[in-house]
Amino acid sequence: GFSHMSSPPGVVRDESPTKKRPRISNQQCKFALPNKNALPTLDHLYHFGLHTGQDLPSLFGNVRAVVVMGSGERAQHMASLWASQTNGIQTLVGKNERYHLYHVGAVLISSHGMGMPSLSILLHELAKLLQYSGVGPVPIIRIGTSGGVGVAAGTVVITTSSINGELQEEHQLPILGQLVKRSSQGWAPWLVDELAECSGDVPVVKGRTMSCDCFYEGQGRLDGSICEYGEADKLAFLQRIHALGVRNIEMEANYLGAFGKKLGFPVACVCCCLLNRLDGDQVRLSATEMKRYVDGSLNLVIAWLIQYLKPPGTPATAKAVLPDAKKGDVDPASLAMDR
Amino acid sequence: GFSHMSSPPGVVRDESPTKKRPRISNQQCKFALPNKNALPTLDHLYHFGLHTGQDLPSLFGNVRAVVVMGSGERAQHMASLWASQTNGIQTLVGKNERYHLYHVGAVLISSHGMGMPSLSILLHELAKLLQYSGVGPVPIIRIGTSGGVGVAAGTVVITTSSINGELQEEHQLPILGQLVKRSSQGWAPWLVDELAECSGDVPVVKGRTMSCDCFYEGQGRLDGSICEYGEADKLAFLQRIHALGVRNIEMEANYLGAFGKKLGFPVACVCCCLLNRLDGDQVRLSATEMKRYVDGSLNLVIAWLIQYLKPPGTPATAKAVLPDAKKGDVDPASLAMDR
Repeated sequence: GFSHMSSPPGVVRDESPTKKRPRISNQQCKFALPNKNALPTLDHLYHFGLHTGQDLPSLFGNVRAVVVMGSGERAQHMASLWASQTNGIQTLVGKNERYHLYHVGAVLISSHGMGMPSLSILLHELAKLLQYSGVGPVPIIRIGTSGGVGVAAGTVVITTSSINGELQEEHQLPILGQLVKRSSQGWAPWLVDELAECSGDVPVVKGRTMSCDCFYEGQGRLDGSICEYGEADKLAFLQRIHALGVRNIEMEANYLGAFGKKLGFPVACVCCCLLNRLDGDQVRLSATEMKRYVDGSLNLVIAWLIQYLKPPGTPATAKAVLPDAKKGDVDPASLAMDR
Repeated sequence: GFSHMSSPPGVVRDESPTKKRPRISNQQCKFALPNKNALPTLDHLYHFGLHTGQDLPSLFGNVRAVVVMGSGERAQHMASLWASQTNGIQTLVGKNERYHLYHVGAVLISSHGMGMPSLSILLHELAKLLQYSGVGPVPIIRIGTSGGVGVAAGTVVITTSSINGELQEEHQLPILGQLVKRSSQGWAPWLVDELAECSGDVPVVKGRTMSCDCFYEGQGRLDGSICEYGEADKLAFLQRIHALGVRNIEMEANYLGAFGKKLGFPVACVCCCLLNRLDGDQVRLSATEMKRYVDGSLNLVIAWLIQYLKPPGTPATAKAVLPDAKKGDVDPASLAMDR
C-alpha cells in the first residue's frame, strides 16, 4: 500500500517542529508537485477557471500567504478588510461558481465551502497555482467558525493538533479502492505562536481541533433529522474529547493539517466558537454578536499578516509598506476560460 | 453499536423495491424525524436562516418534490428554467450565504455545495423543513456533473446503485467516535425508470455511481497536487469499477442514497458526464458544450417534474396546470433571521 509513504523527491519540509519561524522565501519554488511529470502541458485548474496558458508567474508570483474560509460572503468581507487595511486592490479572479478567490496584494483569500472534500479541491488547485507561479510553500491559514468544547462563545481556538471523527491524528481517504491514512499534523508551532500573539482583545485558546464530516450526528448534535443516541451519550462523548484536549469541533481542519504535512506548507486554523457545545447544540447569536466574533478572528489574522509581510527593519505601521499587486495585474476578464 | 439499526418508530418506508410508483401524498406527514422529542421548541435551521417561529406549513406545505445540485449558479438557472416552464415565481428563501434555496411552485430547488459533508447539512435541514411544513417523503433528485466511466461526454447517468470509495454499497460516518455504516441504497427503481423515460434526445445510461471524497486522487486522477500512483494503476482501477457496473464518478450520490434510505425519501441522481475518464482526467469542454450537456440533464428532470406534478386525468400540456406558490407566500424579508 502507499499509506504513510515517505516524501516524494523534491518536497522540502520541516520534519522537526520548531517554535521559531523558519526562513520562507518565495524567490524560488521550494516545493514541487510529486507527480509533476504526469501533469498535462496545458493544465486546467478547473474549479478556478484558470489554466497554465495564462502567465501565472506574473499574475500570482507575488503571493506570500493564503487565507481561506467557508463562505464566499466571508471571503469577500475578509478581502475588503485586508484591501482597506493595506490600501490595496481587491480583485476577484477566475470564475466564481465554486470558489470566491480574491487576490489582494501579497495575499490570496478564498472561500472553500463546507467540509473536507470541498476544501480538498481548493487546496489541490491552490498548490498547483502556487507551483506554476513559482511561489514557495507559503503559510495557509483557515479562518472558521466552530463549536467550542468547554470554551465560551467568542473564544478563538488556534489548532495545535487535530483529530478526525474516530479520534485519530490522521486523515483517511480511499484511493484506488484502498483506504490511505496520512498524518494530519502539519500545524506549524511557530505559526500557532505568532498568531496567538496577535490576538489583541480577543480571548484565545490553543488547543486540539476535531474535524467531522457532518454538522449534526457527526458532531454529536441532538437536533439533526437523524439521531440515534440521547443526551447522556452526547455529553459523555463531549467530555471524553475535552479530556483529550479538544477545544473546538468543525469540518475542515484535519484535512488542512494533512495537506500541509504532505506538501510542506505551514498551515494554521483560527476558529471563533459560536457556542459552547457543553451547553447546547443550536447557534443562537444575534447578528451583532456573530459579526463581533467573526471579525475578532479576521482581525487577529490581519494583525498577523501585517507583521508577517512587513519587510525586516521597517516600523510597525502597516499601511503603504506592504507589497501590493500592480493595478491591472489581475484582470478577471483575461482570466476567464473560454467556457 | 448502532450501525445498521432498524427504523426508528414512525418511519414508514418501502422495504421492497418496486418498479411501480407508490402512492405518495403530502396531505399528511408520512415520515417522522426519529429524534423529534429532542428537538428544541424554537428550532433554528441554521444554514438556511429559517426557524420554526415562522409559519413553515403555510410557506412550504405545497412542496411535492426537491431538486438539488452543486453550485448556486446552477440552482438559480434551474429555478429560472422551472419558473418559466410553469409560469411560476422563482423565490430565493432564507439567507443565501451557504445554500441558494429557491421555492418555485411545488418544487424546492437548492445548491448543496461540493462533497457529501456539505450535502449532508442541506439534507438534514431540508428534512426538518419538510417535516415542520407537514410535507411527506417527497422525491429528492440530485442533478450533477460527473466523470463517465466507459461512457462518452454528454451521456446522462441515472444511478441504480451507489458505492463509496472502498467499493461498498454503504455510507460510513464516525458518530460519537465510532464508525457507523449504513446502507446507501435508497434509490427508488420506479423513479429511475420514470426519469429515464423523460430523456428525450439525451443519451441516458442506467448504472452504478461511485462517490468519492476527493476530485483528484480520490477519483484516481493523475493531475492533482498529490498523486502516488501511475497511469497503469489508474486505468486498472477504472477498468475494475467499470466491471462492477460503475458508469460515473462524482462526490455526493452515495450520501443521498443513504439519507433517503434512512428516512424513507425516494431519491435519485441524474448526472451528465463531462468526459470519459478512460480517455483522460481534465474537463476540456467549450462553454457551448458544457451548457448543452448540463441543460440536457436539467431538461430531463423538468420533463419528469411536469409529468409527476400533473394532476391525474389532465392533458399533457404543462403550463397552467401545475401547483404554484401564491404570490407573496414566501417573502425573503419575512424569512430572514435577525442575524
